[in-house]
Amino acid sequence: MSSNSKGVEILSIGTELLLGNIINTNSQWISEQLSQLGLNHFRQSTVGDNCDRIIKVIQEISKRSNLLITTGGLGPTPDDLTTEAIAKSFNVSLFERPHLWDEIKQKLSNSNFQEDFSILRKQCFFPKNAQIINNPRGTAPGMIWEPIKDFTILTFPGVPSEMKTMWEETAVEFIKTKFSDSYSFFSNTLKFAGIGESTVAEKIKDLLNLKNPTVAPYANLGEVKLRITARAKNVVEAKNIIKPVKEKLKKEFSKFIFGEDNDTLPSVLIKELSKRNQTIVFAESCTGGLLSSSLTSISGSSQVFKGSIISYSNELKNSLLNISENKLNKYGAVSEEVCEAMAINVKNRLGADWAIAISGIAGPNGGTQEKPVGLVFISIAGPTNHITNIKKIFNSTRIRTEIQTLSVNVCLNSLRLILLSNSK
Amino acid sequence: MSSNSKGVEILSIGTELLLGNIINTNSQWISEQLSQLGLNHFRQSTVGDNCDRIIKVIQEISKRSNLLITTGGLGPTPDDLTTEAIAKSFNVSLFERPHLWDEIKQKLSNSNFQEDFSILRKQCFFPKNAQIINNPRGTAPGMIWEPIKDFTILTFPGVPSEMKTMWEETAVEFIKTKFSDSYSFFSNTLKFAGIGESTVAEKIKDLLNLKNPTVAPYANLGEVKLRITARAKNVVEAKNIIKPVKEKLKKEFSKFIFGEDNDTLPSVLIKELSKRNQTIVFAESCTGGLLSSSLTSISGSSQVFKGSIISYSNELKNSLLNISENKLNKYGAVSEEVCEAMAINVKNRLGADWAIAISGIAGPNGGTQEKPVGLVFISIAGPTNHITNIKKIFNSTRIRTEIQTLSVNVCLNSLRLILLSNSK
Repeated sequence: MSSNSKGVEILSIGTELLLGNIINTNSQWISEQLSQLGLNHFRQSTVGDNCDRIIKVIQEISKRSNLLITTGGLGPTPDDLTTEAIAKSFNVSLFERPHLWDEIKQKLSNSNFQEDFSILRKQCFFPKNAQIINNPRGTAPGMIWEPIKDFTILTFPGVPSEMKTMWEETAVEFIKTKFSDSYSFFSNTLKFAGIGESTVAEKIKDLLNLKNPTVAPYANLGEVKLRITARAKNVVEAKNIIKPVKEKLKKEFSKFIFGEDNDTLPSVLIKELSKRNQTIVFAESCTGGLLSSSLTSISGSSQVFKGSIISYSNELKNSLLNISENKLNKYGAVSEEVCEAMAINVKNRLGADWAIAISGIAGPNGGTQEKPVGLVFISIAGPTNHITNIKKIFNSTRIRTEIQTLSVNVCLNSLRLILLSNSK
Repeated sequence: MSSNSKGVEILSIGTELLLGNIINTNSQWISEQLSQLGLNHFRQSTVGDNCDRIIKVIQEISKRSNLLITTGGLGPTPDDLTTEAIAKSFNVSLFERPHLWDEIKQKLSNSNFQEDFSILRKQCFFPKNAQIINNPRGTAPGMIWEPIKDFTILTFPGVPSEMKTMWEETAVEFIKTKFSDSYSFFSNTLKFAGIGESTVAEKIKDLLNLKNPTVAPYANLGEVKLRITARAKNVVEAKNIIKPVKEKLKKEFSKFIFGEDNDTLPSVLIKELSKRNQTIVFAESCTGGLLSSSLTSISGSSQVFKGSIISYSNELKNSLLNISENKLNKYGAVSEEVCEAMAINVKNRLGADWAIAISGIAGPNGGTQEKPVGLVFISIAGPTNHITNIKKIFNSTRIRTEIQTLSVNVCLNSLRLILLSNSK
């Protein structure tokens, strides 16, 4: 981008966005694409299908930005107003492109519907000097138009599949040539488990102020991520810029870092068990299948995962896992003693190298003073019959599904740490 | 809202949104809430963690709107700048609220982590006359502040669960009292299963053009919803406006409608089984625990759900579910014969009124010409030993987790239909 660059903005157009009927996934996707192209994108706006409001926001954007990407409002219905509003923003008229109408008729010639297509004709009108963005997945084309000096608008339909294809086939090359300088952004994300966001952020205060690479923390339920982003001319240069920071972080946090980029706790665990040619089974009570499905949602899990017993009722803890009624009565289903026996018995019964058992109170009911909602016991039985018992009390503000998800994360991360320490 | 009303805006703050790292689900959720409150919401903006840019956009919004809802940037790290930037927008200083710091320390007192919490102190600083929005699910409070006449800002954290709880506990009442006119929107959503969005939309074409109530279709993976929204002075009036449309839809779609509003397929099934005092167990192969966890994610599931056997490997189909090696070799694990035996055996073994077994190829690997990825067998065994067998072939464009989710929906909806037809 030239030195007097003002940046890029995204404008999403559609009343359904303001009503909350749909989630704006287009903005996220385009943002990601702009990041990869190294463009300085600093603002997004959303307005409804209202001509005056669209005009107002476009005029504002034209004063502070070089490039505007719009999505939505290119279709044939009366509330599709984008092209019209853009033209009006700069006092320009629309003219029909007859070849576009021929193309639309061609596209619909083998359609099954017996409909009147004349309303689609509206989609053939554009400002005189606009360049057309062909839409291979639909009937509404977009445009590339520079209505005033140093301000270009690219329009896309709101349908994600159409928008993405048009972006990839036409827009990327145009934007690269006209707006990218020779630099792009490359990111590498480190993923953490067993440590809170505030602790991570506190320990890397200095890194958060870096300019190239930048380091940014994100937190999700039970997971903290640090994204290291380099601005560079190519991947090799970017990796070199990222490397020292990444090494510093790996040294500082060592085993708290479970993976990078697309790694997840289940995918890392599957990889580690596969490497060792080891298998795993589960006995789940309070997580009721969530631990099993966290593994089986990943392709390749059948290499290591043999199966589970979901013993939700005490009756099944007894009949399927051989937990004596005596033990269940004496300690209760949510106890270290029962959980440990569940792990040992499921491992022996199902025949695997590793077993994880979990029993707890996910709430909102069933808690007592002594055993509150959020109390969870986890037992891990390993190949040498070594048992690891873990007791967790999750914050009382946590809801049922959060307690279940956090419990699954603790199971997966605890076994990961055991595998790592065993292999040393 | 008063007659000189200028409307409501949403501002999302966070560089991760501009980088495309996360999807902005908060804006959608808040939009939905504002619609329900009948507020005139006409614009959304997103900016990064940059103080000057946040100030600029807040000053702009303060000139054209009455009410601004912000999300994000309330946390403890240096790039959490929202409160500071809002104060600077109106040349106001921040002051510490000592009781908030006490509350934060209290919240963290039974945490397991041995951490330094001092950076959280930043979250206790607010403009002098701001009202605090308590955050029961996290440590960062929000505020309600009227920095200038006829312009109020409400701030929320970016973490969706925290934002939603704060909205429901504090914001709704404030907004209703101060900003809603005597009309509100009331919605009633009908939920469909076993029917596609285009079929639903085609059949109700005329209803989609209604003005009060309005009818809007939404589709998610395996689920179609129709939202009927009335503008009315009170709930009774709204219900009367909604009633005739709702009755028409119920007549037209009858058993395709599985519930309303917050109902889910698992919650409806739990309710139906509870009503009948019946229990259920599962034998899962390709869904690997997802069917079980769909039930156990709901409080009260222990009333009807006893447990499951996740027999992911053929070995466990044999040892835990008594499927003979002969049968497994002859028909294959993914076959009607094996699936039916899984259902019968798990029902007998675990002792329940109902059993569902599921076996299929979730992919992306493991498919053959004869048994492609997406092929799923489901068997439902009932109290009278009646067996229902279902064969599904999901579209080849579906990914693994979609096939698993759609399979679970078919299981739940099929049993729901069986229960309904039995009770007639």
